[in-house]
Amino acid sequence: MKRVLVLAPHADDETLGVGGTIAKRVAAGDAVTVVVLTGHGTELHPVFPREVFETVRAECEAAMRVLGVTDLRFLELPAVQVPDLPKWAVNKTMQELIEDVSPDEIFVPFPFDMHGDHRSLFHAASVAWRPVTAAGRQVKRVMCYEVLSETHWNSPYLEPGFLPQRFEIITDTLELKLRALECYRSQVRPFPDIRSVQAIRALAELRGALVGVPAAETFVVIREVQ
Amino acid sequence: MKRVLVLAPHADDETLGVGGTIAKRVAAGDAVTVVVLTGHGTELHPVFPREVFETVRAECEAAMRVLGVTDLRFLELPAVQVPDLPKWAVNKTMQELIEDVSPDEIFVPFPFDMHGDHRSLFHAASVAWRPVTAAGRQVKRVMCYEVLSETHWNSPYLEPGFLPQRFEIITDTLELKLRALECYRSQVRPFPDIRSVQAIRALAELRGALVGVPAAETFVVIREVQ
Amino acid sequence: MKRVLVLAPHADDETLGVGGTIAKRVAAGDAVTVVVLTGHGTELHPVFPREVFETVRAECEAAMRVLGVTDLRFLELPAVQVPDLPKWAVNKTMQELIEDVSPDEIFVPFPFDMHGDHRSLFHAASVAWRPVTAAGRQVKRVMCYEVLSETHWNSPYLEPGFLPQRFEIITDTLELKLRALECYRSQVRPFPDIRSVQAIRALAELRGALVGVPAAETFVVIREVQ
Amino acid sequence: MKRVLVLAPHADDETLGVGGTIAKRVAAGDAVTVVVLTGHGTELHPVFPREVFETVRAECEAAMRVLGVTDLRFLELPAVQVPDLPKWAVNKTMQELIEDVSPDEIFVPFPFDMHGDHRSLFHAASVAWRPVTAAGRQVKRVMCYEVLSETHWNSPYLEPGFLPQRFEIITDTLELKLRALECYRSQVRPFPDIRSVQAIRALAELRGALVGVPAAETFVVIREVQ
Amino acid sequence: MKRVLVLAPHADDETLGVGGTIAKRVAAGDAVTVVVLTGHGTELHPVFPREVFETVRAECEAAMRVLGVTDLRFLELPAVQVPDLPKWAVNKTMQELIEDVSPDEIFVPFPFDMHGDHRSLFHAASVAWRPVTAAGRQVKRVMCYEVLSETHWNSPYLEPGFLPQRFEIITDTLELKLRALECYRSQVRPFPDIRSVQAIRALAELRGALVGVPAAETFVVIREVQ
Amino acid sequence: MKRVLVLAPHADDETLGVGGTIAKRVAAGDAVTVVVLTGHGTELHPVFPREVFETVRAECEAAMRVLGVTDLRFLELPAVQVPDLPKWAVNKTMQELIEDVSPDEIFVPFPFDMHGDHRSLFHAASVAWRPVTAAGRQVKRVMCYEVLSETHWNSPYLEPGFLPQRFEIITDTLELKLRALECYRSQVRPFPDIRSVQAIRALAELRGALVGVPAAETFVVIREVQ
Repeated sequence: MKRVLVLAPHADDETLGVGGTIAKRVAAGDAVTVVVLTGHGTELHPVFPREVFETVRAECEAAMRVLGVTDLRFLELPAVQVPDLPKWAVNKTMQELIEDVSPDEIFVPFPFDMHGDHRSLFHAASVAWRPVTAAGRQVKRVMCYEVLSETHWNSPYLEPGFLPQRFEIITDTLELKLRALECYRSQVRPFPDIRSVQAIRALAELRGALVGVPAAETFVVIREVQ
Repeated sequence: MKRVLVLAPHADDETLGVGGTIAKRVAAGDAVTVVVLTGHGTELHPVFPREVFETVRAECEAAMRVLGVTDLRFLELPAVQVPDLPKWAVNKTMQELIEDVSPDEIFVPFPFDMHGDHRSLFHAASVAWRPVTAAGRQVKRVMCYEVLSETHWNSPYLEPGFLPQRFEIITDTLELKLRALECYRSQVRPFPDIRSVQAIRALAELRGALVGVPAAETFVVIREVQ
Repeated sequence: MKRVLVLAPHADDETLGVGGTIAKRVAAGDAVTVVVLTGHGTELHPVFPREVFETVRAECEAAMRVLGVTDLRFLELPAVQVPDLPKWAVNKTMQELIEDVSPDEIFVPFPFDMHGDHRSLFHAASVAWRPVTAAGRQVKRVMCYEVLSETHWNSPYLEPGFLPQRFEIITDTLELKLRALECYRSQVRPFPDIRSVQAIRALAELRGALVGVPAAETFVVIREVQ
Repeated sequence: MKRVLVLAPHADDETLGVGGTIAKRVAAGDAVTVVVLTGHGTELHPVFPREVFETVRAECEAAMRVLGVTDLRFLELPAVQVPDLPKWAVNKTMQELIEDVSPDEIFVPFPFDMHGDHRSLFHAASVAWRPVTAAGRQVKRVMCYEVLSETHWNSPYLEPGFLPQRFEIITDTLELKLRALECYRSQVRPFPDIRSVQAIRALAELRGALVGVPAAETFVVIREVQ
Repeated sequence: MKRVLVLAPHADDETLGVGGTIAKRVAAGDAVTVVVLTGHGTELHPVFPREVFETVRAECEAAMRVLGVTDLRFLELPAVQVPDLPKWAVNKTMQELIEDVSPDEIFVPFPFDMHGDHRSLFHAASVAWRPVTAAGRQVKRVMCYEVLSETHWNSPYLEPGFLPQRFEIITDTLELKLRALECYRSQVRPFPDIRSVQAIRALAELRGALVGVPAAETFVVIREVQ
Repeated sequence: MKRVLVLAPHADDETLGVGGTIAKRVAAGDAVTVVVLTGHGTELHPVFPREVFETVRAECEAAMRVLGVTDLRFLELPAVQVPDLPKWAVNKTMQELIEDVSPDEIFVPFPFDMHGDHRSLFHAASVAWRPVTAAGRQVKRVMCYEVLSETHWNSPYLEPGFLPQRFEIITDTLELKLRALECYRSQVRPFPDIRSVQAIRALAELRGALVGVPAAETFVVIREVQ
């Protein structure tokens, strides 16, 4: 049994980017932990009212039930403010999390996603998985996932593109992923919005066809130790 | 009226990569020339019998009728052998073609497609569009297109990925593109093959959703002069 | 008539990088808005006295008169401190600006300019032009400009270089650009200073000669939707 | 039981780059095939006499006995001439090989090694492992290995560096690797030559220390399908 | 006599990355200044007690005596907090330092080291060495050094790798470097830790063998003016 | 006294890219060898009549007299055909040349120049300067130069741009360079042609201003050993 950790800056990232693979890992008997890293935070939030977070967290819980995730956690880093927090504090939060879960496999957002939270959290995570602690040396694989509304809107060639080496076949779990996605009523919109079920299905078909299967999720490989 | 030149190493590249935009340019009244650069060649071909080329060229003619292209040309550089031809001779062929058409806009394959012919022909074309001749200075825009079965199978991060800056909305011509594609009976296969109508549709939907429209083709911008 | 938005972190960036094209757009009848994004700010400034900003803004107004710009705006983000401001607040400022102007075309600094303000403002702008709002979908073209004293002093190969795809011919407006530049008495210095009229003229000649014309400004293309 | 294919342009590449991992795979019960792709060839060789190849092939056989490889094959592409062969012919040779072995895992040289043979053979291999054939879809993992005398002498930043994501711990097989290396009397030289046992040991220690173990071989991940 | 400035974010970086070259410059009669940029700082430190800094600074003084450095300075930027300081203030500190030393040659950490302090300090230094001041124009050479526990743990291909162009032969000073390293009792650990004497020796041997000598330190060249 | 080798694929490359530095090295007492690598060749040339080469070689001799070069050599690799020659043969030619001259410093074209000859000859040279021979280990510095009509016409971001780290101040030799350039009557054209004296002067001024001097030539650093 492998321990899998999915780091989601905001609720829905985990489903958009890793939903099919989460369900596949669960089906394979792995212990999957999903952590939503940001929320309202403990101070007054400058942009979003508290209800926004309550709504999306309820949706996330429903989505995780669809995918079969039983270990879902919410941290309280304040959303859209992670780049403004003291770096050492974010690093510490991430380090404690990774030491607590001690995962074999980590899914993390792509460091050049548009959202500043994604960028900052990737860096904090990459400090935490260094092989300088027992938990760091326990990590056998780190992979970045793609989020349609974040990953492909950065600046072509000025920032690295998402060029996946790893294909996870999700033919058997694509429908679960889409059902989980539909739990996010406050986030999903009708096609041609990039956050639509149809766009996500198109991505899965396209990624699958690249390796000759009906559906896949893809990942950029950061580190593998065997 | 603008003159548009679509460079297709092999028949079907033009439809896979630029089909929707070709139909859009035709509808806009532009003069579109499609040139299939390779064929059987004048010598005995080491891999393909002559019939293969006859079949696909007939399919190409049908496809171009669907897209409304009236200027379709076939050159006779020997397929799969372009990298082995004398470079100066390939350059000369391309230079004569570009001087003959004198296009305002050129569509060319991505230089890191898997196929050696695509790579060599891109380089020859880029020699030909240098602003050292009247035809070269006439070129206002050069763009690379993506071909599903060639462009996304190169080596991630070791070769540049296809990261498009330019989105051509093809909502009105997507169905024409797919009908043109279906003319290529010898090339198209059922999903999940990468050369299936469903995979091509998924790509168009995905590219469209990235800018909020139902369908798009995308391009890497090489040069624009205004 | 097209709406053009030129984002200048500091007064003079717009002239150094886009001066000739601004005058060309004005001559073509486009509505050009130039926004100087930083200034003294509302707090005590830790580096520059208020007079510095008053001087350069007066110079900027003179320069814009030379170029024919009638819509010149000054925001009050504190200069050299943009990276230290809350990211969400900078994003909000930029978003409101882009929604207010609703431009077809945006000129923005290169994200790897030396100056931290340029880097932070590029990121905020790229959040604002995402096609998730009506204003974002209105943007047809985004391009980065080069500023001699910022763009070519970053670290070769460790950060992306400025490799322009787009050439705007400014043969007819180069002298206007240089006259506008001379309005910046507090900024321009004698050659061989990088901020000299002679260096800027050399750049324009060189960029022009690359496409066979006497003068050009060049740009890196970020996004085009047609 | 997994089938592993190690592609070695020249005898000794397999030991220099994958020696420790080969022995580890053999110990794990995998079926390892090592193929030396070039040799004297069937024509008169313009650079090397036939004896050179006979010597190094005998050394290779001894080395493979040390590593426990029972399936060792020698092809006859002419050494140092692979870039000058017809591309379609090299592609065909590689395709037949990969269809014959039908591997789950492929080790291939880094495409930016100094040696032209390495570069050409990488490209031919990458054509052969496309998921368009049953053998291509069988390939679950492709990785590039590093060869001290080839991989780190290319041009920094002008060509991609070897930046490994995958670490194979070879603590238990490092001594076997070094013994296999010593079989190559005609190739190995005393330190500080780059092809010395001491340099290879230093590399293994360094790569190991990067993940906190005494010895490792590292690889660039090209494709993984799961 | 040349003035050499070694910028070390934390005590031990200078020895890990430049130790052999420092001793070599000293032997050549150059004036070498080593500046440790961070420490406890003037406020309460959120992570480290003051003793940590006192210990490592004493070790640093011993190490510098081994290397023959007589001009060793400690600044008080608070460690692990540099990215959170006002950028203008860090820039000012660096500018004053470079104006005070007015070096011919600068050694600076690699800007994509894992540690946020390294990243921020590189940027501040690169603002300071711009050729806009007399001190900036005095700088004849800027080079980045590698630190095993920082430089090779970033994300392969998502961030630039350390690909050195410059090799300094340190055959005569390697043992001095290792002795200096051993002064850092609080930092150095037994092999296979990346901060072990054996790992550092392996790196020196490997870098040396790449140019055919027993030991070298390597550097990425940022700027040279002659 | 240092031995300097300038590798020019075609007569005029050496003056366009290194003219000012050649004169500076000559003035410093270095032994400068300029080698024009291609010419008519020994076979019938498919593109150029023999007179073309005779003319340009006479011009080259005049230009070298202006720069003070006394060791000028012409090889007979056939122009525009270098990529089609057997790679081993080109490598051998280059290796013999470098062993014969045994230079301390090499100037070589940029490997991503448009011209296929430049690309192939760079690769052959980089094989020859490997530190595996006495001549290879003798090379202390290798640098790429820029040629206006070749270096800046490649594909932005798809191929590496020319991003120089090294600036050679040529204030004292710029006029010599321009006079040498004027010897090339068959090659130089009036501004705004890229091969005009005015464009070359603009480049020198711009490169100079980047480091605060009136004129410079710039180079990409490939290898330095000290």
